[in-house]
Amino acid sequence: MDAIEKRVRASFGRQGLMSALGAEMTAVGAGTVEICCPFDKQHSQQHGFAHAGVITSILDSACGYAALSVAPMEYEVLTVEFKVNLLAPAVGERFVARAVVKRAGKTLTICSADAFAMKGDEEKLIATMLATMMRVPSV
Amino acid sequence: MDAIEKRVRASFGRQGLMSALGAEMTAVGAGTVEICCPFDKQHSQQHGFAHAGVITSILDSACGYAALSVAPMEYEVLTVEFKVNLLAPAVGERFVARAVVKRAGKTLTICSADAFAMKGDEEKLIATMLATMMRVPSV
Amino acid sequence: MDAIEKRVRASFGRQGLMSALGAEMTAVGAGTVEICCPFDKQHSQQHGFAHAGVITSILDSACGYAALSVAPMEYEVLTVEFKVNLLAPAVGERFVARAVVKRAGKTLTICSADAFAMKGDEEKLIATMLATMMRVPSV
Amino acid sequence: MDAIEKRVRASFGRQGLMSALGAEMTAVGAGTVEICCPFDKQHSQQHGFAHAGVITSILDSACGYAALSVAPMEYEVLTVEFKVNLLAPAVGERFVARAVVKRAGKTLTICSADAFAMKGDEEKLIATMLATMMRVPSV
Repeated sequence: MDAIEKRVRASFGRQGLMSALGAEMTAVGAGTVEICCPFDKQHSQQHGFAHAGVITSILDSACGYAALSVAPMEYEVLTVEFKVNLLAPAVGERFVARAVVKRAGKTLTICSADAFAMKGDEEKLIATMLATMMRVPSV
Repeated sequence: MDAIEKRVRASFGRQGLMSALGAEMTAVGAGTVEICCPFDKQHSQQHGFAHAGVITSILDSACGYAALSVAPMEYEVLTVEFKVNLLAPAVGERFVARAVVKRAGKTLTICSADAFAMKGDEEKLIATMLATMMRVPSV
Repeated sequence: MDAIEKRVRASFGRQGLMSALGAEMTAVGAGTVEICCPFDKQHSQQHGFAHAGVITSILDSACGYAALSVAPMEYEVLTVEFKVNLLAPAVGERFVARAVVKRAGKTLTICSADAFAMKGDEEKLIATMLATMMRVPSV
Repeated sequence: MDAIEKRVRASFGRQGLMSALGAEMTAVGAGTVEICCPFDKQHSQQHGFAHAGVITSILDSACGYAALSVAPMEYEVLTVEFKVNLLAPAVGERFVARAVVKRAGKTLTICSADAFAMKGDEEKLIATMLATMMRVPSV
């Protein structure tokens, strides 16, 4: 595990919400991050599917850490904004968010991410995010 | 409590995530909804502030229920997409999301919502959402 | 006309597209800008209404100049991103975009704007924008 | 040229704005569309680059026609909303927008599109769009 991955995983480990959702970081590369979480009926919307807020949470963390993976060590990354399209009901055993850096500028990093519902070996695209992240000096 | 409010509150009561976040629906009107949730360090991001996913969750539910409050009884409402701008760190004792219907069409309802962090009597704007909701026949 | 308005209007005057659309800046305040343009069938979409690109153009310029109106003199403003919801067909004699700064930070300024179609004395809401602008040092 | 392409190109030919921008539809497939336009200093922003409204216009038309290319013949397509991230200044001899359908539902079609600036043989990514299109019965 290199310095970048170590740093990304350490920050992810401090996100209480990821732990509350049972989320794991299943992959980290230079400009790419994958986060999975199980379906939990305690995090449902009104029909018993996963709430959009759950899917958005793993998409946002995946985008943020993809951006962090290409940031100089003296910077952290904050979410400026994102847009999410929900493409299908979040029905599955697990959900995975895969983010990739689309452009890393000096101040802003733009990421896109897709979320999939998994049932056995099958994956279904359920949501997509386009996000803007900002580098800020580490404190 | 009229039929619309009853319906909106009943659906809100079925959202497991709102309960997991400790969220309450503090106001319902024709085309407006307010949802509050307490700060909980278990739902934090890496600095210990509330995760963007938490704020997005109450913004999304507020927009969805604002849209439902103006929908005919034979329809439900699903989130098509939303954009969120995070304007300040989510630091506070409680958070409140206030949504309003901007335009209700036959199929789509557009809502905007602001989220505030509350500390004692003070409120600070921390996020804003612009969302598209879709009416679907109730099952 | 104060220094801010002068600066905003001078920059607006350099936007070739605004001139090509016949657009005028009809109001400038601290954090607010209004831009109007006439309907022109040469700028239509396939049904003969104004193209979404026209409405987006005046919304974007209005947001950008609203952000510029609250920026220190040594900075310019560039568009990072925006989201537009089209709420009704762009049918009218004229269109007006009204932007307001929602939050001005050191680097980023978040603006919202509504666009209206005008026919005689009537105004109809046809679109809404939520935009992120960035300050960059003037060259 | 098959029936779908013929239909898409006929509708594109009715968009006055595309003609005003000198835009051409350079490719049409099942769920994909490419639109190019030349740089024209009359359509500039304040620094003499292409205005975001120009790039958005070809991105929006590309997304709309990608959605139309997979719609049943008895439907047309309207733009519900889009988000655009501007990734680099729109500096080039020509601009190209390439759209692809991400998900086509019964009512809504979600498309993504990238815009590139071209200078000789080089292409540079300058913007990206995520858009929601709606099918409506043809009149």
